[in-house]
Amino acid sequence: MNNTTDTPVTVIGLGLMGQALAGAFLAAGHPTTVWNRTGAKADDLVSRGARRAPTVGDALAASPLTIVCVTDYTAVRELLGTSGMPLDGTTVVNLTSGDSAQAREAARWAEQRGVRYLDGAIMGIPSTIGTAEAVILHSGPQADFDAHRPTLEALGAVSYLGADHGLASLYDVAGLAMMWSVLNAWLQGTAMLRTAGVDAATYAPFAQLIATGVAEWLPGYAEQIDRGEFPAEVAALATDARSMAHLVEESEALGVNAELPRLIKAMADRSIAAGHGGEQYPVLIEEFSKPYHS
Amino acid sequence: MNNTTDTPVTVIGLGLMGQALAGAFLAAGHPTTVWNRTGAKADDLVSRGARRAPTVGDALAASPLTIVCVTDYTAVRELLGTSGMPLDGTTVVNLTSGDSAQAREAARWAEQRGVRYLDGAIMGIPSTIGTAEAVILHSGPQADFDAHRPTLEALGAVSYLGADHGLASLYDVAGLAMMWSVLNAWLQGTAMLRTAGVDAATYAPFAQLIATGVAEWLPGYAEQIDRGEFPAEVAALATDARSMAHLVEESEALGVNAELPRLIKAMADRSIAAGHGGEQYPVLIEEFSKPYHS
Ligand SMILES: NC(=O)c1ccc[n+]([C@@H]2O[C@H](COP(=O)([O-])OP(=O)(O)OC[C@H]3O[C@@H](n4cnc5c(N)ncnc54)[C@H](OP(=O)(O)O)[C@@H]3O)[C@@H](O)[C@H]2O)c1
Ligand SMILES: NC(=O)c1ccc[n+]([C@@H]2O[C@H](COP(=O)([O-])OP(=O)(O)OC[C@H]3O[C@@H](n4cnc5c(N)ncnc54)[C@H](OP(=O)(O)O)[C@@H]3O)[C@@H](O)[C@H]2O)c1
Repeated sequence: MNNTTDTPVTVIGLGLMGQALAGAFLAAGHPTTVWNRTGAKADDLVSRGARRAPTVGDALAASPLTIVCVTDYTAVRELLGTSGMPLDGTTVVNLTSGDSAQAREAARWAEQRGVRYLDGAIMGIPSTIGTAEAVILHSGPQADFDAHRPTLEALGAVSYLGADHGLASLYDVAGLAMMWSVLNAWLQGTAMLRTAGVDAATYAPFAQLIATGVAEWLPGYAEQIDRGEFPAEVAALATDARSMAHLVEESEALGVNAELPRLIKAMADRSIAAGHGGEQYPVLIEEFSKPYHS
Repeated sequence: MNNTTDTPVTVIGLGLMGQALAGAFLAAGHPTTVWNRTGAKADDLVSRGARRAPTVGDALAASPLTIVCVTDYTAVRELLGTSGMPLDGTTVVNLTSGDSAQAREAARWAEQRGVRYLDGAIMGIPSTIGTAEAVILHSGPQADFDAHRPTLEALGAVSYLGADHGLASLYDVAGLAMMWSVLNAWLQGTAMLRTAGVDAATYAPFAQLIATGVAEWLPGYAEQIDRGEFPAEVAALATDARSMAHLVEESEALGVNAELPRLIKAMADRSIAAGHGGEQYPVLIEEFSKPYHS
């Protein structure tokens, strides 16, 4: 594999994200072929040096590596299924959002047709593409990732997660759960502090400090989960639950939303009811690992 | 105020936390007077140099600064109310956990009796006391905090939040909400990744990276809240909601708990229903600022 920026690459799907991806390849000097269902969306890229492929088949044939980024997996299937060419030997990196089952199914489907297939997920918005701020996750055969890594690096901070094609989308949604949880906890605290006249900008650095500090505990806590033993080295869950009650009561007394505090407490209460009150917080993995219907 | 470590200090309440507090003052060289309802809990501290006060009144009279750390505010009131001495002029720092209303009420009660009163909250466990890991929040008159800051610094990383006595406990519970939210989001992701055979230790550094990265956005997002304007500079809430649907569906498909994903989505959906789908995430402050009953 040629590691220089003259490696040709194809981008199929030129929505907001696909245009950013193709633009980053062009900016990095790669000969870039593009295709989009609605042809006009290629015009701007063509004026910046991209080559317009007349058909999906031509687009796939133009480069050893093709990035697909369309609305959903149904669109991916439609596109590749009707490409009317033997897909044999080409490598497709599918950066379309979907779930892990769809990624694994697409991988099986592609591999049956001789396509080298990597599934990916983009953690970032179009304007960050081409910078280290865009984190792009990949999963599938490591050899295929390694072969194309130098080309993929034009898009952002790329990382490889493992052979299971479902991993990129799983890490993606797990990361999003963390993102919204940090934002929601910050909003909860901001709402509480505003009742005392503290503005959001005053509170934010404190919230940042706590989030960053707690995040440092995760690798250590993870060891408890992997060992399946949860000795209360720091604090027992039953002690935490008393502070959770304070959080719920304070939220209710202040007249702010209390749903997040109540959910935090409910999950701990269930774990305590299951006999884990003397163990440490990560024992809650048992509650998080199973569905709950009230 | 004498800033050297020979400033006398009193600690009332020698449970797990009170013993740690008194121990830190002793270790820093402060002449330390102690009192506890159950006298035997003072024995170890006395053997390390503490002076045992026969009554609460004697304890309060022994030092210009008294730390109170007992179970709850009812106990604080009982203790100080029956001290049988004029409390005039002494400074009490109450590190007992409680809510903001209790802190403000205790402040009024104490000030009526001529006591200089600061309310505090300890973010840390007894073993961290005396180190920078113990974050100790204070609120009340700044002059009183400033006067005793050099003494209080023996206990950990002390900070002053403002004149409103309720602030220490508000920041405390807001910080706890952040702590549990980071932990819960990490557990959610860990539960999801474990279905694909990824162990907790492998996933933890990724979760840490996301939490730390998102925490950096908070000061900027806070400006939107303080301005009351939420232009979709990064992404629109309606776009986020589509990814939230993925998170909910993936959690359900994997058979892990989906309550946290559902709550994340429900709050965004409500804000979108209220007409904010084209605005940016911090607009959710409006949902977090009011109670919701389904
Ligand atoms: N935008 C972001 O911030 C962002 C961030 C992370 C991930 N993503 C993911 O990236 C993917 C693309 O997002 P986007 O923002 O670029 O969306 P978009 O602007 O709506 O573009 C959708 C693209 O998919 C194409 N398409 C849809 N159905 C098709 C079909 N049946 N056959 C052929 N082409 C079809 C569209 O072609 P036409 O032009 O002909 O309609 C268009 O090129 C999505 O999976 C999204 O979740 C986006
Ligand atoms: N431990 C922690 O990790 C931690 C962390 C942050 C904050 N805190 C807060 O610190 C405070 C003390 O916690 P702790 O862990 O030290 O609790 P603890 O070990 O249960 O000790 C409770 C203390 O309160 C005293 N007390 C209770 N009721 C009393 C009354 N009516 N009159 C006089 N004394 C009374 C007890 O005296 P006796 O010995 O006579 O029973 C004992 O000294 C609590 O508000 C807690 O939330 C604790």
